[in-house]
Amino acid sequence: MSEHTYPSVKDLTLEEKASLTSGGDAWHLQGVEAKGIPGYMITDGPHGLRKSLATSTGETDLDDSVPATCFPPAAGLSSSWNPELVHKVGEAMGEECIQEKVAVILGPGVNIKRNPLGGRCFEYWSEDPYLAGHEAVGIVEGVQSKGVGTSLKHFAVNNQETDRLRVDARVSQRALREIYLPAFEHIVKTAQPWTIMCSYNRVNGVHSAQNRWLLTDVLRDEWGFKGIVMSDWGADHDRVASVNAGLNLEMPPSGTDDEVVYAARDGRIDPAQLGRMAQGMIDLTDKARAAMSIDGYRFDVDAHDEVAHQAAVESMVLLKNEDAILPLKKDSKIAVIGEFARTPRYQGGGSSHITPTKMTSFLDTLAERGIKADFAPGFTLDLEPADSALELEAVETARDADVALLFLGLPEAAESEGFDRETLDMPAKQTELLAKVAAVNPNVAVVLSNGSVVSVAPWAGHAKGILESWLLGQAGGPALADVIFGEASPSGKLAQSIPLDINDDPSMLNWPGEEGHVDYGEGVFVGYRYYDTYDVAVDYPFGYGLSYASFEISDVHAEKTGANTATVTATVANVSDVDGAETVQVYVAPGKADVARPVHELKGFAKVFLKAGESRTVTIDLDERAFAYWSEKYGDWHIESGDYDIEVGTSSRDIAAVVTVELEGDGKSLPLDEWSTYGEWEADPVGAKVVAAVEAAGDSGELPKLPDNTMMRIFLKSMPINSMPMLMSDGGRRITAFMLDEYAKLTK
Amino acid sequence: MSEHTYPSVKDLTLEEKASLTSGGDAWHLQGVEAKGIPGYMITDGPHGLRKSLATSTGETDLDDSVPATCFPPAAGLSSSWNPELVHKVGEAMGEECIQEKVAVILGPGVNIKRNPLGGRCFEYWSEDPYLAGHEAVGIVEGVQSKGVGTSLKHFAVNNQETDRLRVDARVSQRALREIYLPAFEHIVKTAQPWTIMCSYNRVNGVHSAQNRWLLTDVLRDEWGFKGIVMSDWGADHDRVASVNAGLNLEMPPSGTDDEVVYAARDGRIDPAQLGRMAQGMIDLTDKARAAMSIDGYRFDVDAHDEVAHQAAVESMVLLKNEDAILPLKKDSKIAVIGEFARTPRYQGGGSSHITPTKMTSFLDTLAERGIKADFAPGFTLDLEPADSALELEAVETARDADVALLFLGLPEAAESEGFDRETLDMPAKQTELLAKVAAVNPNVAVVLSNGSVVSVAPWAGHAKGILESWLLGQAGGPALADVIFGEASPSGKLAQSIPLDINDDPSMLNWPGEEGHVDYGEGVFVGYRYYDTYDVAVDYPFGYGLSYASFEISDVHAEKTGANTATVTATVANVSDVDGAETVQVYVAPGKADVARPVHELKGFAKVFLKAGESRTVTIDLDERAFAYWSEKYGDWHIESGDYDIEVGTSSRDIAAVVTVELEGDGKSLPLDEWSTYGEWEADPVGAKVVAAVEAAGDSGELPKLPDNTMMRIFLKSMPINSMPMLMSDGGRRITAFMLDEYAKLTK
Repeated sequence: MSEHTYPSVKDLTLEEKASLTSGGDAWHLQGVEAKGIPGYMITDGPHGLRKSLATSTGETDLDDSVPATCFPPAAGLSSSWNPELVHKVGEAMGEECIQEKVAVILGPGVNIKRNPLGGRCFEYWSEDPYLAGHEAVGIVEGVQSKGVGTSLKHFAVNNQETDRLRVDARVSQRALREIYLPAFEHIVKTAQPWTIMCSYNRVNGVHSAQNRWLLTDVLRDEWGFKGIVMSDWGADHDRVASVNAGLNLEMPPSGTDDEVVYAARDGRIDPAQLGRMAQGMIDLTDKARAAMSIDGYRFDVDAHDEVAHQAAVESMVLLKNEDAILPLKKDSKIAVIGEFARTPRYQGGGSSHITPTKMTSFLDTLAERGIKADFAPGFTLDLEPADSALELEAVETARDADVALLFLGLPEAAESEGFDRETLDMPAKQTELLAKVAAVNPNVAVVLSNGSVVSVAPWAGHAKGILESWLLGQAGGPALADVIFGEASPSGKLAQSIPLDINDDPSMLNWPGEEGHVDYGEGVFVGYRYYDTYDVAVDYPFGYGLSYASFEISDVHAEKTGANTATVTATVANVSDVDGAETVQVYVAPGKADVARPVHELKGFAKVFLKAGESRTVTIDLDERAFAYWSEKYGDWHIESGDYDIEVGTSSRDIAAVVTVELEGDGKSLPLDEWSTYGEWEADPVGAKVVAAVEAAGDSGELPKLPDNTMMRIFLKSMPINSMPMLMSDGGRRITAFMLDEYAKLTK
Repeated sequence: MSEHTYPSVKDLTLEEKASLTSGGDAWHLQGVEAKGIPGYMITDGPHGLRKSLATSTGETDLDDSVPATCFPPAAGLSSSWNPELVHKVGEAMGEECIQEKVAVILGPGVNIKRNPLGGRCFEYWSEDPYLAGHEAVGIVEGVQSKGVGTSLKHFAVNNQETDRLRVDARVSQRALREIYLPAFEHIVKTAQPWTIMCSYNRVNGVHSAQNRWLLTDVLRDEWGFKGIVMSDWGADHDRVASVNAGLNLEMPPSGTDDEVVYAARDGRIDPAQLGRMAQGMIDLTDKARAAMSIDGYRFDVDAHDEVAHQAAVESMVLLKNEDAILPLKKDSKIAVIGEFARTPRYQGGGSSHITPTKMTSFLDTLAERGIKADFAPGFTLDLEPADSALELEAVETARDADVALLFLGLPEAAESEGFDRETLDMPAKQTELLAKVAAVNPNVAVVLSNGSVVSVAPWAGHAKGILESWLLGQAGGPALADVIFGEASPSGKLAQSIPLDINDDPSMLNWPGEEGHVDYGEGVFVGYRYYDTYDVAVDYPFGYGLSYASFEISDVHAEKTGANTATVTATVANVSDVDGAETVQVYVAPGKADVARPVHELKGFAKVFLKAGESRTVTIDLDERAFAYWSEKYGDWHIESGDYDIEVGTSSRDIAAVVTVELEGDGKSLPLDEWSTYGEWEADPVGAKVVAAVEAAGDSGELPKLPDNTMMRIFLKSMPINSMPMLMSDGGRRITAFMLDEYAKLTK
């Protein structure tokens, strides 16, 4: 008897293998009952379990699901800069999957927030791939630590909702490798998610579900991915092409398994490839078997709510706090304005929409904690015009308060999966109400609820305090109360820049594309990589966030740990009398480079919780990748030799100290050839000898003499040597041939 | 005896045909003596004849040529907005070619000024393809009216000097068709240049010399080009590929005609294709025969100098004229400061550099005209540090003058063919001298000499007047005196925006590219198309230029002349007591569009010379192209139905009146298919019937019922119908099949 008693693909008929490559229904794998392979359930995440009550193929309502803990969506969680907290959220979700017999939860989604108008920004992590990868990996590791699978999605380059099922994202190899793929790469290499979900869109001409370069060459052959790839729901348009490309699973099933069978018979699919795809599905069920065999498991609803509560606390970003208006004193006369305080918007719309186990609004929390406040809703949660009676009531409520706490934000209709936003602006009726309130009471603090960045500058003058709370999940009410009344200090940092104007974003030149394609014309200059490199003013920079405490960074050092690696140490001190947390951020700033590189890029971070007066030294390792760029010339990562600045700070624009390391570089070079310029020949050690021989042969009359006036020498420097006839007519060919011959002799 | 006695390709051997596809030497065609085909000379332009004195293959010095009239390079001439003037320049150049027995003069160059740092901006026309094409066509028509050929260059997408022989310009089809090709297209269709010179660079992966799409599919098959294509000097790296692509002539010859012979023998070149290429060369010499047979012709040096003079007058753009500091009174006490007044920079560096027939500096002109002025050079024409003695002298010279006239500009070392500029900034020593002069004398007027845009804002506060004179050719001195002393009113208009900061230019994100390629990430948003659409402040907008006279535009009307054409009329009045010229500019602003279109685009202009108090009505026709965009979906130009604003003004940001026309559109549409979204089916007349049938079938139970909650309907709208399984699992396939069947029935 073999060690592995689970069925192998060798035990299956062709039809059975084909059947494994599509689902059993919209939310189940297609098991092979005769061979003991179960059809486990897989269902949506990513910030909690969305197990549909209607599990048949006819499911039509995403809002109808069993209760599950609603954690803050990634928009909030990403602001925590706390991978351990994210890991805890993952563990909790894994436990809920066990209870609900769900083998795989569909998340996390780590696509880059290319443009803040993107409709799914609320469920993605960051404009920065390092941050996205190093936070979201906690979901994967946390869930999978419980014996339940994740589905890293949407692979790849799903950065908009407009025309998402057809759009061809045309992206340079360098931008793919440096911006759009690294979060996936890091998580695959670090945590081996059991599954990956491909995106709807095309990448450089080929739909992701049929994209062999993406699903096989990069994902499996380069990164070593061991799990299975499933289609996003309805993303597989060609079963044959997708199996060949490396897609294991069509979801939901379109009833076309027979096409796979025919194709494997007539050779359009290599039977070995079908076998690999089916074996992946068998391995997946094998991995899930232990957890799915646990019966009667009940997760701890209160404990998970507490995880959601802690996650919500760390999700908030304090943008502004003039006159230390926050935290509020519990015994002050507080006017709470805004329907969001009573009816919180705590998650986004679409496939991620879940039914929470409990729901406590901010007003509920005040009542629970015995904190007095006057409330007026001020506006309705929709895109309708202002209601003047509500406005009037709100202004009157605010007039005599010590402080007016305004809950503003985007109503659900303003952002969702399925469409992109048209504007960064807040609804006018809300900002107009703010202005009216501020006119009667200067002590205004605003709490924002929104899934993606909104414009702040147009109305910030009316608020002394601005707390960006994103979408906080089911425990947002208590978490807000903790922060607003000082039980906890805000510690979130922006995972996405807040621009002054959406037109400042360079992706706006190609947003959201047209006629079925979108050109990623800004290349690697996404988010702060653009703003900081091109010195464009922003409202709040990437990595920014205030605390009630104050911190100082000192003793910043970097030591090389290898030819192209280093370790950074820094001491961070809480120099206030309030407990809090600071996030030390490490940016690498290359010196001169052969390509246009961002002025700096995040390559490490550490969130440090410090009691008042406490200090601690953090250590952050920088590996080779921290210094590399993707070279299209080499088709590989490349580290140039030379000096690199290492910036340590608290946002991309608050750098406390800069230290420099000199790297040896990776030594990559290409041999000279006819397409190398005369200047490149001069700069190369061997090439320089050939150049000297050419010039000597010109002097001796053996070869035509190269021109030596200034203009001709300028031309020559940038001239590939096969263009010598430009200067020398047919005599140029003799020089080219001479150079190539000499080089061959010297390098053979 | 046939009507055409000239030899035909049928009369030639294979070797003779091959020989015609390369030059005889660096500046001659390779004739076939035995067959009576001459090896005419062809030589550089484009703003005058550069006939090298060393005509052998060993030529090495571009500065050594026979005297010829040096007209203003395109940087200046393009500012004239006067095609008739340009035509006169062309006629003059044609006459000089006859005298010098030059069959083809190599120009004009109509590449787009994608970025003002481009090293050849001085010899290109505009950031706008309409303006470039409608001005430069005058050179082609003017030269060719004399029986001499032109070479429209550099075809195509040569927009930078960095790595120009290798760089792959990656450009969208739409940007190619709307920005980078139309100037070529207009001139080919209007004037049939005898020759076209291909560019060095690659276009979307293929070197222009080997680019069959460019040289045959577009140029000949679409546009109907009848002439020959030659390589830029040294641009042909593969004779076989280039003959196949449609390149008639390798220049200069690399001595590889035998390769062409072998390839035609072994089938790598279709002999018919070689015959076409060779026949083009025969036809070219046939066209040139008459003019080249004229012996002893002498052009009128003085008359041509006068054309150069008039062209120079119209090339100047008056940017600023506070307190009407210009024109100067001849009897005022004038301090002329700046070496450029004595040693003018009147043309650019590189292959266009010619030896003028005469040369009169501004100081020379003052002397000739008996105008008194004190002169101090102030600085040297180089990039060396300031000379404090020269500075002191200049300040003292300016101190007691009524007005200080400062001649500032870029020295030759700062811009040339062969390299791109690093900065828009003027040399610091010059702007520092300006500040020092302004400190002792507030009455400062600056005359600028530069081939491409320089930053003006940083120092403009020190000058009441700024006259941008570009490079003025050999008659710049007298022309400047005419304008500065009011003999003529300035009438030039900017052919290129002057930005406040080079980083405002969206091409900076991909400038000048890296690792052998440059992505044109800004797409069609080049120059004012970007600045005006994205509402980015500029220093001086496209089309801007002051006059000593004042003008008013009134009575603007537009009438439709067809389904998708219109005629615009406007009255322009000189409401001052000074003679002058105004350029009426017509911009088309599309309403809603299916693609992201520039907010407006130049589609017509008319320069009107008006005596004081005079007025005139101009008529400008707008053809279909004026309203069209290039649709990648249709692979063709497309005019959408609807309203189009027609803006009539005097710069892209000074619009005097807007009128609207409603166009029928071209009616293009594609049939619906499985990739059409449900929303597209709903919007289509036939599709709507199918949708109604689907919904009815759902109600009756014949088909699965489509979900109808809000979120699902949002998803459905943007869903191609082949993705129905996303919502309906395998039931979705039945709906898709039903829709395609119904559509086939209704449209068969």
